Amino acid sequence: MQGKPAAKTLRVGFIGLGIMGEPMAENLLKEGFPLTVYNRTQQKAAGLKTAGARVADSPREVAAEAEIIITIVSDTPDVRSVVLGPNGVIEGVRAGSIVIDMSTISPQVTRDIAATLKAKGVQMLDAPVSGGQKGAIEGTLSIMVGGDSDALERARPVLLAMGKTITHIGSNGMGQVCKLANQIAVGLNNLAVSESLLYAMKAGADPAKVLQALQGGAANSWAFQNLAPKILLRDFSPGFMVKLQQKDLRLVLDAASDLNLPLPGTALTHQLYHAVEARSEGNEGNHALIKSLEALAGIQVKAGS
Amino acid sequence: MQGKPAAKTLRVGFIGLGIMGEPMAENLLKEGFPLTVYNRTQQKAAGLKTAGARVADSPREVAAEAEIIITIVSDTPDVRSVVLGPNGVIEGVRAGSIVIDMSTISPQVTRDIAATLKAKGVQMLDAPVSGGQKGAIEGTLSIMVGGDSDALERARPVLLAMGKTITHIGSNGMGQVCKLANQIAVGLNNLAVSESLLYAMKAGADPAKVLQALQGGAANSWAFQNLAPKILLRDFSPGFMVKLQQKDLRLVLDAASDLNLPLPGTALTHQLYHAVEARSEGNEGNHALIKSLEALAGIQVKAGS
Repeated sequence: MQGKPAAKTLRVGFIGLGIMGEPMAENLLKEGFPLTVYNRTQQKAAGLKTAGARVADSPREVAAEAEIIITIVSDTPDVRSVVLGPNGVIEGVRAGSIVIDMSTISPQVTRDIAATLKAKGVQMLDAPVSGGQKGAIEGTLSIMVGGDSDALERARPVLLAMGKTITHIGSNGMGQVCKLANQIAVGLNNLAVSESLLYAMKAGADPAKVLQALQGGAANSWAFQNLAPKILLRDFSPGFMVKLQQKDLRLVLDAASDLNLPLPGTALTHQLYHAVEARSEGNEGNHALIKSLEALAGIQVKAGS
Repeated sequence: MQGKPAAKTLRVGFIGLGIMGEPMAENLLKEGFPLTVYNRTQQKAAGLKTAGARVADSPREVAAEAEIIITIVSDTPDVRSVVLGPNGVIEGVRAGSIVIDMSTISPQVTRDIAATLKAKGVQMLDAPVSGGQKGAIEGTLSIMVGGDSDALERARPVLLAMGKTITHIGSNGMGQVCKLANQIAVGLNNLAVSESLLYAMKAGADPAKVLQALQGGAANSWAFQNLAPKILLRDFSPGFMVKLQQKDLRLVLDAASDLNLPLPGTALTHQLYHAVEARSEGNEGNHALIKSLEALAGIQVKAGS
C-alpha cells in the first residue's frame, strides 16, 4: 500500500443511534464505509448489524477499531461521558484518529474535550447538524464545523456521506456556536409565527388567507413556509421536538450568560416553551409554542384537535 | 356611451405623496389613469403635475372629481382627518365612488370610517401594502384587502397598476389585521436576526460564515436574506424605518390590547426599538434593532461605522 488510504477504507465508529444517529449511520454504510457502532440500548443497533455494521460493547471498543469516531448523543454530559468517561473513547482511541462530535452541546465543554484529546494526539471536530430527521435520512444535513482544517479535509468524505452543506466556521467550539446561533433564530422565528397567526385569528381573520399573504413578503421565513401550515391543521407532530428545542435554548442561555450577553427574546421564548412542557407536550414539534400563547390568552383549543 | 366605463376612464384621486404614495401615483399615470392628486405640502406634487396629474387644493376637491379615491398617509388620525375632517373626502365624494385607504392604521377605526362612508353610499376598501419603496416604484407591492368583493373587483385594475399580489382577506378592517400580523412577524424576525448574529459575534465566530450556514436551513427568513447582510456591513440605511416599524407595533399592541391578547414577544420588540429611538436613530432601517442589544451588552460600536 502506498500513500493515504482511499476514503472508503477509513473505518468509521459511530456512537449514538437515536432518531438522527441511526439514519446517519445507515448512510455511511450505504456509501461503503466499514462501520463499528455502539448504542447504550443495544437493541437499537439490530438494523445496522443486519446491514453489515459491527456492534461494539463500549465506546472504548469503537474507538479502538476506527480512524474516525463519530458521537451524536443527547446533551453535554453524555458527550463528556462517552468520550472521557470509563470505557470511553479516550481509553481506546489511537493517536492520529479523529473524533467528530455531531451532538449539539456546550461550545466551552467542546473546547475542553478537544484539548484533552489533543494531549493524546487525537484531533476533534465539533460538527453539529441542522435539517432534522428528514435531512438525516436523505443525507442532506447542513453541517457546521469547528476544528482544524486538515482534520476537516480528512473527514470530509465521511461528512459528505451524511450531509450536503459543510461550512467550516472556525476553531473548536465554533461549530457549536454556529448551531446555537441557529437555534436562537429558530426559536424566535417560531415566536414570530405564533404571535402573528394568533393575533390574526383572534382578530377574526381567516388565518389561511393571512398566511398566504405573509408568505409572499418581508414576514416570510422557513417557519412560515414549513411550520405555520401545520399549526393551521393543528398538526403538532414533531419535525424538531419542544424538549430538544428547550435543551438547545438552555445551552444558548448558559453560553450567553458566560459572556454576560443579555438575549431577552431568546430568554422569553425559552420561558414560553416551559408552558408547553407544563402541558406535558414536550414531545410535540417546536411549533407547539403557539399553545403557550393560547394559554396566556385563555383560548381553549380542544386537546389533540 | 354604453355600460360601465373601461378601466382607464375611471378617474382616480390620490391623497398622500410620501415615499410610498408618490411612486404609486406615478404608476397610475403610467397605466393611463386620469389622476387628481393632493398633498398637504403642495411642492411634493410638482413632479406628478409635470407628468400630467391635476393638483387639487383639498381632499374634498379630489373626491369631487374622482370615482376611486386613494389615501396613503402616516397614521390613524391622518386618515380620519383627510377622509372625515373639514375639507375632507366625505365633503366632496359622490355616492357610488370607492375610497381605498392604503395606509397602515387601526382595524377598528377603519371599520368606523367604512361605516360612515357607507351611510353616504360610498364603499371603502382597506388595502395596506407591503414591499417597501422598492415595491412601490416597481409596481410589485403586495396588497392586503378588506372590504366587499364587488368593490374590490371594480377597483382591481387600479390596484394592479400599483401591486402584483392582491389578497382579499375579508370584510373591512381585515386588510389592516393582515398587515398588522405581517408587522408582528417582521419585528420578531428582526429580533431573531439580531440575537443570533450578536451571540455569534460575541462568542468569537466569523459572522459571515455563520450567516452563510444559517441562510441554508431552518433559521432562514426574509430578514436573514435581506437585512442580516446589511448588518454585517454596518449599513443601516432604511428599507423600512424604525419609526414606522414602531408606529405599526403600537397599532398592533393597541389592537391586541382591545382583544385582551398578550403578545409578549411583540411587546419586547417594541420596547427594544425604543432603545434605537433613544439613540436618535429612528430614521434608520428596522434592522438597527441590533443596536439596542449592543447597548444592553455594553458593546461600543463606532457611531455610523
